[in-house]
Amino acid sequence: MRLSLCGFVATIGLAACQASGRSDPAAVRAIIDSLNAKTEQWYAAGHIDSVAQNFAQDVWQLPPNSPPLVGRDSLRSFWANAVRWGRWDFDFDAADVVVADSLAVERGRYTLKFTAGPEAPMPSLEDEGNYVALWRRESDGRWRVVWDAPVSVRPASGALTAPSASR
Amino acid sequence: MRLSLCGFVATIGLAACQASGRSDPAAVRAIIDSLNAKTEQWYAAGHIDSVAQNFAQDVWQLPPNSPPLVGRDSLRSFWANAVRWGRWDFDFDAADVVVADSLAVERGRYTLKFTAGPEAPMPSLEDEGNYVALWRRESDGRWRVVWDAPVSVRPASGALTAPSASR
Repeated sequence: MRLSLCGFVATIGLAACQASGRSDPAAVRAIIDSLNAKTEQWYAAGHIDSVAQNFAQDVWQLPPNSPPLVGRDSLRSFWANAVRWGRWDFDFDAADVVVADSLAVERGRYTLKFTAGPEAPMPSLEDEGNYVALWRRESDGRWRVVWDAPVSVRPASGALTAPSASR
Repeated sequence: MRLSLCGFVATIGLAACQASGRSDPAAVRAIIDSLNAKTEQWYAAGHIDSVAQNFAQDVWQLPPNSPPLVGRDSLRSFWANAVRWGRWDFDFDAADVVVADSLAVERGRYTLKFTAGPEAPMPSLEDEGNYVALWRRESDGRWRVVWDAPVSVRPASGALTAPSASR
């Protein structure tokens, strides 16, 4: 009886939320698609303060075959260096997004083309793979990435490897 | 007003659910820890039917530096081959679990030690990294992994690479 009541009340609550657009999956998907498109542009233009604002303060970003970037400051610092090495062209293509309350989880496919500049400590490279990302709607109403897990499908030499000096 | 009502009703509903244990984060975390421990044993013992039952029918498992395993049948088929090659000792250590409704998202650290047997097409290897996994409470009440994204921290040669013949 308790379970039935719980389910009933939660269903009413969630239905009301969805009607108000708070957790409507299609609306959240559109927000994520839009933020992904902007983030691609920010990486390519080297606008790392804008990139960093797409991630939560307590972010864990897990670059393939590299140590994790823990916290927004660490992420900003890593990428502020990295954009001095050359141009980072990412493509994020969301395949599926599930939404529950103030959380969303995205699965997608990515490609990366890094074009080395004169100061790059490594050659140009390309990578591709799939990712799972946890998003959270934060107190300012903005959705941000909390955990970012891109998994390269490339065997080894083509995968992103960051020089340890950058960390 | 609509938002306030929605939040109020949803809060009552979720509080009732948590009181009943349906989406209590600590309870879900305990379930996930228990399933991780069992899955480690199943991989090591080569009990792949049991491993497969820990994953949803529509699973995407993303082995590092390898093509994705899409669907439970594909996952079962891959691992049924792989356990003939040797022993797979995984360790999954959940660092954080967030829960919303019938979804849970886990971030953790993994290690892998593969000990090659006589039929292995590749040498013994070790890997380590971090992962993000999406869990879903399914209609039978059981929590299963839907998306599994382990990201190796090893630069390249030590990463898991599956021979293409196995797919």
